[in-house]
Amino acid sequence: MALEKLPRNKSNDYTHDMAAARRTVVENNSGHALHHTGQYSIPPEALPGNIEGFSGIVQVPMGFAGPLLVHGEHAQGEFYVPMATTEGTLVASYSRGMSLTRAAGGITTTVIDNAMQRAPVFVFKDARAARDFGQWVDAHFSEIKAAAETTTRSGKLRDIEQYAASKMRWLRFNMTTGDAAGQNMVSKATHAACQWILAQQPPGLEHFTLAANFDTDKKHSAVNNLHSRGKRVVAEITIPAELFQPIMHCTAEDLMHQRGLSNLGAFMCGSVSNGAHFANGVAAVFLACGQDIANVAESSAGFVYTELKDNGDYYMSVTIPSLIVATYGGGTGLPTQRECLQAMDCYGAGKAYKLAEIIAATVLCGELSLASAIVSNEWVSSHDAYGRNRK
Amino acid sequence: MALEKLPRNKSNDYTHDMAAARRTVVENNSGHALHHTGQYSIPPEALPGNIEGFSGIVQVPMGFAGPLLVHGEHAQGEFYVPMATTEGTLVASYSRGMSLTRAAGGITTTVIDNAMQRAPVFVFKDARAARDFGQWVDAHFSEIKAAAETTTRSGKLRDIEQYAASKMRWLRFNMTTGDAAGQNMVSKATHAACQWILAQQPPGLEHFTLAANFDTDKKHSAVNNLHSRGKRVVAEITIPAELFQPIMHCTAEDLMHQRGLSNLGAFMCGSVSNGAHFANGVAAVFLACGQDIANVAESSAGFVYTELKDNGDYYMSVTIPSLIVATYGGGTGLPTQRECLQAMDCYGAGKAYKLAEIIAATVLCGELSLASAIVSNEWVSSHDAYGRNRK
Amino acid sequence: MALEKLPRNKSNDYTHDMAAARRTVVENNSGHALHHTGQYSIPPEALPGNIEGFSGIVQVPMGFAGPLLVHGEHAQGEFYVPMATTEGTLVASYSRGMSLTRAAGGITTTVIDNAMQRAPVFVFKDARAARDFGQWVDAHFSEIKAAAETTTRSGKLRDIEQYAASKMRWLRFNMTTGDAAGQNMVSKATHAACQWILAQQPPGLEHFTLAANFDTDKKHSAVNNLHSRGKRVVAEITIPAELFQPIMHCTAEDLMHQRGLSNLGAFMCGSVSNGAHFANGVAAVFLACGQDIANVAESSAGFVYTELKDNGDYYMSVTIPSLIVATYGGGTGLPTQRECLQAMDCYGAGKAYKLAEIIAATVLCGELSLASAIVSNEWVSSHDAYGRNRK
Amino acid sequence: MALEKLPRNKSNDYTHDMAAARRTVVENNSGHALHHTGQYSIPPEALPGNIEGFSGIVQVPMGFAGPLLVHGEHAQGEFYVPMATTEGTLVASYSRGMSLTRAAGGITTTVIDNAMQRAPVFVFKDARAARDFGQWVDAHFSEIKAAAETTTRSGKLRDIEQYAASKMRWLRFNMTTGDAAGQNMVSKATHAACQWILAQQPPGLEHFTLAANFDTDKKHSAVNNLHSRGKRVVAEITIPAELFQPIMHCTAEDLMHQRGLSNLGAFMCGSVSNGAHFANGVAAVFLACGQDIANVAESSAGFVYTELKDNGDYYMSVTIPSLIVATYGGGTGLPTQRECLQAMDCYGAGKAYKLAEIIAATVLCGELSLASAIVSNEWVSSHDAYGRNRK
Repeated sequence: MALEKLPRNKSNDYTHDMAAARRTVVENNSGHALHHTGQYSIPPEALPGNIEGFSGIVQVPMGFAGPLLVHGEHAQGEFYVPMATTEGTLVASYSRGMSLTRAAGGITTTVIDNAMQRAPVFVFKDARAARDFGQWVDAHFSEIKAAAETTTRSGKLRDIEQYAASKMRWLRFNMTTGDAAGQNMVSKATHAACQWILAQQPPGLEHFTLAANFDTDKKHSAVNNLHSRGKRVVAEITIPAELFQPIMHCTAEDLMHQRGLSNLGAFMCGSVSNGAHFANGVAAVFLACGQDIANVAESSAGFVYTELKDNGDYYMSVTIPSLIVATYGGGTGLPTQRECLQAMDCYGAGKAYKLAEIIAATVLCGELSLASAIVSNEWVSSHDAYGRNRK
Repeated sequence: MALEKLPRNKSNDYTHDMAAARRTVVENNSGHALHHTGQYSIPPEALPGNIEGFSGIVQVPMGFAGPLLVHGEHAQGEFYVPMATTEGTLVASYSRGMSLTRAAGGITTTVIDNAMQRAPVFVFKDARAARDFGQWVDAHFSEIKAAAETTTRSGKLRDIEQYAASKMRWLRFNMTTGDAAGQNMVSKATHAACQWILAQQPPGLEHFTLAANFDTDKKHSAVNNLHSRGKRVVAEITIPAELFQPIMHCTAEDLMHQRGLSNLGAFMCGSVSNGAHFANGVAAVFLACGQDIANVAESSAGFVYTELKDNGDYYMSVTIPSLIVATYGGGTGLPTQRECLQAMDCYGAGKAYKLAEIIAATVLCGELSLASAIVSNEWVSSHDAYGRNRK
Repeated sequence: MALEKLPRNKSNDYTHDMAAARRTVVENNSGHALHHTGQYSIPPEALPGNIEGFSGIVQVPMGFAGPLLVHGEHAQGEFYVPMATTEGTLVASYSRGMSLTRAAGGITTTVIDNAMQRAPVFVFKDARAARDFGQWVDAHFSEIKAAAETTTRSGKLRDIEQYAASKMRWLRFNMTTGDAAGQNMVSKATHAACQWILAQQPPGLEHFTLAANFDTDKKHSAVNNLHSRGKRVVAEITIPAELFQPIMHCTAEDLMHQRGLSNLGAFMCGSVSNGAHFANGVAAVFLACGQDIANVAESSAGFVYTELKDNGDYYMSVTIPSLIVATYGGGTGLPTQRECLQAMDCYGAGKAYKLAEIIAATVLCGELSLASAIVSNEWVSSHDAYGRNRK
Repeated sequence: MALEKLPRNKSNDYTHDMAAARRTVVENNSGHALHHTGQYSIPPEALPGNIEGFSGIVQVPMGFAGPLLVHGEHAQGEFYVPMATTEGTLVASYSRGMSLTRAAGGITTTVIDNAMQRAPVFVFKDARAARDFGQWVDAHFSEIKAAAETTTRSGKLRDIEQYAASKMRWLRFNMTTGDAAGQNMVSKATHAACQWILAQQPPGLEHFTLAANFDTDKKHSAVNNLHSRGKRVVAEITIPAELFQPIMHCTAEDLMHQRGLSNLGAFMCGSVSNGAHFANGVAAVFLACGQDIANVAESSAGFVYTELKDNGDYYMSVTIPSLIVATYGGGTGLPTQRECLQAMDCYGAGKAYKLAEIIAATVLCGELSLASAIVSNEWVSSHDAYGRNRK
């Protein structure tokens, strides 16, 4: 029997029985048992809106790194940061960075921008009509805003960026979305706004499509780097020179020199980030906290900037230009994910900025720790000690 | 009490008790219960090498998309593809694409390249010494290869790419790594090879570091796009014209036109991918199958190429240049992840290419489905039906 | 004797004698005559502001391509386009494209954006101070504008884009600059504006610098692609199917297929342009018309977008996002360059848009001609016929 | 009368009369005289292969910067560097950098790579056939090389890089081309090689085209950055700390700090170069020396790498990855251009590396001078003094 042949109706789709029935189909098909995937404590009836064809769960081990000392505008104090991962060394490495930064007095964090996007494109008969349309859009912003906001209580249309080539006009709608990540909210609002625009019959319009790769969703891009997607957040710290050797087994000068090489390496090889491994920290916290892990694609890009002070202290910052976080909606309400958020008091309304700050501070700690490990030649040995290395 | 103060020793670190003790510390710290994160069936003693400070688990809902019909060199036949996600619509959308491609006769998949990298940099007194070193490396490849391979049974040093700027020489070691993802294996082998190189005292050498952003690990880059990291895999299909309208509610011409806009959009905004959302499929399968989800950063980049045939049929392909997959090691052996791999007969030795093919075919289905939804104006409505939209 | 030892004073620096004296120094130094470089009709006294150490001239051969039929908002009718080059085939190839587009009814051109930039960076004690500064700048735009415009009659500060990372704030000043290219005008105005800003003592300011690679001047960048530098101009045309074979020896379908391959090639190799050779046309007209040829670096990037219409006609467009042109100032007033501009009635006030339109239309013709040559396999043979090929 | 109606035959096409006749047509058409463009000393009969429709010349003022002290492998000693430009300040600024580097003992230059490219693409029925073709190409390299080299005396096929996506295989042919820039030579040789390949009837081949944007010619690209196009050349110097203040009015520390900001600015804005204005030096020497100025597009990209030494000295390097230079063929033999080359003893066989070294050293001087001017706040004032600023 095939999965799609399973009898189902709306009322029974998210049940233990239905999940078990699906597992049975797949077990019969593959000849392999699905035992552990059927062991879960989360209630299936909580899952509509999170998944279709619910069949069981994946259990991912989770540890707490920290405590992480943060001086944010929203996150203040010490936090144990839940990280879900299957990669050895990761939690230990971030914890090491958290030790150093705690010893150095803590990390300052700041959210410096915030918006979620959808970027429809309007195609005209020629470039002139497209340009005229662009001016019309500017002149009718308040009506477009009103149309967009009919679909949402918490979303606000902040502004519309315009990008032009050939006879096209991309409108990049920037909305604030409360504590939700907001992709669907913005899609819906933008769709409504565009329906209003289309009803005005823009002169010369040939074609319209709600998206054509200018958002850019689930992928890194220059436009996201420049103009943010989700939160743009900075974590920064000045670390006293004397702390490096005892904890990191290297000096600030070593790190500064390595930074110069890493900057050039990243630039020459066309990397999206001049950091070492933002993705590790972002992915592990995202997974623990019910964020959309596909957004690791764009949320893992970023910039490291450092200065060696005259007194030998080391200023270090990470900037994440497109950190997409939610503390409400999506996967945040699922039981284990909610607990992880709650462990940092980051669940629910009013917590998205706080979570963004904690993640940025976490990323900084990982950059510091890995760079130090490379510089002090401890990188391979630490992975030998903690990792599940294959020979 | 702080987490690091918990009494522990090697023998008790990965136990239910130790995990519970850690949760208690965090619970006391935050004032919130950690109940569900303590509900798991996976044995703690299996976790060394996967995580430090094990404290519980995250439960992520999983569904099977498919069946997916693949004609690979390694994956052949129909597969139910496990996808772990908290984002509504995702599984349904990939399944829709799998329906269409199955009706069209199935997807052809091919792994066209395979290597894992580590890229140390050697800094010399001047560019001339660096250039001479590059020639010396070429001349001593067999000895470098021998030194690298002392550390591994399954890893083979295939070749060393060289990149040069200023007085630096980056050596990008390319190794095949069997069925492991291989990052640690390659780090260790490269480290050993470099120790041998350093022992030869290259003339004019000023400085050495094992990594400086040229690998590029956990981030997308042009060098990865060009030269692959992990598997480079193509999935392709020619879909008869008449299948589009009934299943996708649009035509091949519609999709071809949309592709033109998406190509330009991606190019102009500096996106790493001209696809729509490779990351969704990659992340969901990675998570279900115990892959390193931080690698979504680089594994989600890629290329879509399509042709509208004279008879109206639609050729579509996706190319993933840096798909990092393992069917052995890392998180693949954890109980739920292993079951998900086994559901596709993808667990263990000799299965990495097969898994790569299935993921690429899955990604193609997602591209097809989302592009069709955008073109047929069903995108927003389908998210309304399936998604957990916040107003 | 060394060049810098030559006796000179302000009144004699730009004279035939001084130029001859310099040539003599170099001749003596190298042992080679400088005869032709001393043959010129342009008056040395016209050269202050164009060059220092004037020593003679370079003679570059010039031909006229065309006539080019343009339907712009500023350029209307047929133009002979002066192209200065030493590369055989170039003028012939552009002329061929002009023949086809003239037969097809002419090219429509539109300037869709226009601004010149300077992007100072302000460094603060932390990211929060930098963010606050950004808000302060927005609130004080009118005063900043007033300060900027004290230094210029024709320049107007349109807006200030802001870009942020770490504790820095880049302000990208966008000015309209009349018919001058405007780099110096904008530098001066931005400098004045920043002096005013600095006088207000922004809280937490650590450092200021007038430029740090965010303009971006004399180099291509994503920010220029997105937001223009100089003129953003589109040239477009729909070519009847039946015209291709007689003039281009290929079909519109051939070109559309080639475009698909070129789009993917450009995307995968990380090219700044998906066009074939914008630089050839831009450089040749720039040189003839007294433009700054160093701006070929950024003015040669761009986008080609094409559509194959249902009736077989071929819509083709080129978009040049950063075309830096002047019809006043710089090298435009030098005798030969001025004559070249006058040949298109493009010299002096009010002509910059017109020149931009003509160049974009020229670039389109070159793209059309080269793509056709490649597709029809005539590319190598035409270079054999016209080029100065080395065996 | 239109230009194309002018009576002509092969024997009279490159004559004073024919040029005059063309000018007359254009004069009549525009109503403006073409007087100075008709004043030239170069013989028309030398121009076939350099231009079609020869109609006169453009006179560009030229000055000598320097002397420049170079310690290259090919360029050794002091050189007056001819720079043709219409942009005030340029020659003075480069000369200032030359003064400082001369005082510091001179610039070391090294050509570290050298090849010219053409990159045909072969399209197959599927990715598997394309992959098999790639292996076949490797196995038949010697025959392909033989076929390529039938068309050239001086060109040698060094190797063929392969790039793959979808069902395509791009072959990037790397040839050494003696002292010619070599684009046409490589096109012809690649064309011949591909004809041989096509004659072998590669299984599954659907389509072939000689170029599809992977070379990449006349535009910057990541692949050129990584793998060079033309010469890859480094210029480097260590400048004693005490020289900065007297000549540059700033310190090495100032420059190092500015470099950090410029690196981040370039990275974040997606610039092709982290340098300030490579294009100015490259363009001015290219123009004086008969190089193809359209190649400013790719030859102006590059990398600056600096180190602040413990003793306060400043190591500075520039790397130009795609410097396309010729000392033979193209425009190099035209009288004024030849004289400029001869002034540096760079004309003719065996001089291309020397010219590449001189240009790289020149570029370094320009970077040093402009960075110093920015840091010392003299940038705007120097342009006021030397430039032709428009108010």
